[in-house]
Amino acid sequence: MKLPRGFVASGVRAGIRKKRPDLGLILVEKGANAAAVFTQNRFQAAPVVLAKASLKKSGGRVKAVVVNAGCANAVTGKPGLEAAKRVRARAAQLLRCDPNEIFLASTGVIGVVLPDKKVTDTLPDAIARLSPGGIDALSHAILTTDVGPKIAQASFAIGGKRARVIGVAKGAGMIHPNMATMLAFVMTDVALAPATLQRCLKIAVDHSFNAISVDGDTSTNDCVLLLASGQAGTPDLDDFHLALNTVCRDLAWMIVRDGEGATRVMEIEVRGARSDRDAKLAAHAVATSPLVKTALYGGDPNWGRILAAVGRSGARFAIRRVSLSAGPVTLVRNGDPAEYREKDAARVFARERVPITLDLGSGNARAVILASDLSHDYVSLNADYRS
Amino acid sequence: MKLPRGFVASGVRAGIRKKRPDLGLILVEKGANAAAVFTQNRFQAAPVVLAKASLKKSGGRVKAVVVNAGCANAVTGKPGLEAAKRVRARAAQLLRCDPNEIFLASTGVIGVVLPDKKVTDTLPDAIARLSPGGIDALSHAILTTDVGPKIAQASFAIGGKRARVIGVAKGAGMIHPNMATMLAFVMTDVALAPATLQRCLKIAVDHSFNAISVDGDTSTNDCVLLLASGQAGTPDLDDFHLALNTVCRDLAWMIVRDGEGATRVMEIEVRGARSDRDAKLAAHAVATSPLVKTALYGGDPNWGRILAAVGRSGARFAIRRVSLSAGPVTLVRNGDPAEYREKDAARVFARERVPITLDLGSGNARAVILASDLSHDYVSLNADYRS
Repeated sequence: MKLPRGFVASGVRAGIRKKRPDLGLILVEKGANAAAVFTQNRFQAAPVVLAKASLKKSGGRVKAVVVNAGCANAVTGKPGLEAAKRVRARAAQLLRCDPNEIFLASTGVIGVVLPDKKVTDTLPDAIARLSPGGIDALSHAILTTDVGPKIAQASFAIGGKRARVIGVAKGAGMIHPNMATMLAFVMTDVALAPATLQRCLKIAVDHSFNAISVDGDTSTNDCVLLLASGQAGTPDLDDFHLALNTVCRDLAWMIVRDGEGATRVMEIEVRGARSDRDAKLAAHAVATSPLVKTALYGGDPNWGRILAAVGRSGARFAIRRVSLSAGPVTLVRNGDPAEYREKDAARVFARERVPITLDLGSGNARAVILASDLSHDYVSLNADYRS
Repeated sequence: MKLPRGFVASGVRAGIRKKRPDLGLILVEKGANAAAVFTQNRFQAAPVVLAKASLKKSGGRVKAVVVNAGCANAVTGKPGLEAAKRVRARAAQLLRCDPNEIFLASTGVIGVVLPDKKVTDTLPDAIARLSPGGIDALSHAILTTDVGPKIAQASFAIGGKRARVIGVAKGAGMIHPNMATMLAFVMTDVALAPATLQRCLKIAVDHSFNAISVDGDTSTNDCVLLLASGQAGTPDLDDFHLALNTVCRDLAWMIVRDGEGATRVMEIEVRGARSDRDAKLAAHAVATSPLVKTALYGGDPNWGRILAAVGRSGARFAIRRVSLSAGPVTLVRNGDPAEYREKDAARVFARERVPITLDLGSGNARAVILASDLSHDYVSLNADYRS
């Protein structure tokens, strides 16, 4: 798979993680217009602090992205910031650009200062390996507890030319709406101003990365970066929206499907809510309920747990108007248990993707969220994360 | 162990659960003044709906409590209400009292109508076995996924007489502040008016059952009932407060320690918050974070996850004033990682009760919450709850 025009990338080993690639590099030779969204966690990692400031100072221009796995460089105080600055300075020197055109991202353990010398020593190797086909190496170098790499793409025409949107992401744990322990880099060759890119990205993220939940935790390091090299010309905005939304949605699905220990994903649609807020409250309560998530793991259509979560969510509704279904099977109708065959419900819960529809019967607002199950492997992965 | 004066109890098998006692009965021959607090879940089980109404109609008087395990009789619509009413009517007939003096409680699976005939057929046996020593049988008959029974007691003097407070509880999963899948019955022989009992109970519950979290879920059936037979006379209110608080706190500790699959309990104290709300937001985010709870299970002092949870909690604070410690070990001081020996922190995390103190450095408000860990057994227990 090749990157859109104007981009080269690589992924190499810097020795931050044991025996796995852990340093990724993206270079846009002529620079790119950029837009980004970041975690809303109060504790923001050093690379997030620097990336935000740099984007502002460069007027939304990015020449290169330096991303490492194995160390989040978060809650590391001044030493963490200094380490990140040294990486940025060295990258700018090697790539002959302004430090503010270097976009930094890190993912991994919190509370450990980035071993920046490992990064700066390895940067020349990462630069030497840059290529249009480097997306695969990059996609591996940003992983932590992910089972596999995540790449999605879409394309459309501008005049007779083919324009592309290609995205690469990481993320498996600490995944929740309003960003997650996830990084995503989306590259396109269209020509759009940073402000337009930012608007497009906001919409795409709200319907993708902000609508998934693995464990309800949100991290210190999340960011989604959109880079546009401009080499394919100015797109029809509808075409671009569609392509960008598709890529973000595909990546979001891959993240939740690859949720730590996940065996199954529940697609929770809440409709008939009095407001967007009510719809989201209900959907999030279901998506984060350990009891719902363990029942999902067990393939058990235990709808009582779903309604119990909705009941404590704070969403406003009248019990006698609530209906719930799993795929084609109606489980609850107007607040009462419906007649259905247990094996029909069990068949829906045995799927890889379990569609659940909750109708609150109280209005027109709607929310959709994808949530992974809670398995033994989730516990195993996180009970010895640091060892 | 004997019940306070005026009380007899029993626990028998009605056949709702397989091969385990599942029907409990408490009788106060001369009736008791009563106070109760109930779940705040929007979906309230049939017994909760009836118990609330009965207490109101009887003016806070209770003659008997009928409680079953194995079936929550929640989200069961009109058939569920009718089933509960038949149990109440039959109990009133057998015990020769007003139906509104019968207090109903159920716990178990949601969405299944109570098999009331099993209960009514067994009531005569439960009545025949009533005795002052029946607290043990009662404590077993109300369990669901609990590992063991939970009884706590305290006593004090009124004049020369000994007054007692004895409580029995069940609860292991769906445990979270604002009640949980828990039932607690607290019996005392003091003489106090229902309104006074309600005030005392509210305070005791806020510092006990409302300050524990197993999985963040709250149930449709929770209730704490306080019964006072009056036979030991009118107490000094301070003495009674102390005894009641002790009993409730001991029971709450037993519930969280016996949290589904729990191997360890974290005592999270948030201090220095700008308001009670901020303190609670921070404490609850930590208590419900799957990443914190799995690290606790692994005995891993992974404080980055604790701060990440605080960072997304919505609590207001300045990062540079935040400090965190585990027992005597300071982990973070004024927003920066502190110098400490990993093995010292690991030793605290290896305890059965892990004390964590978070100082937000922003005010004087404080909150404490007890949270169990998230283990493989939690997943196993809940992935096949209904099988």
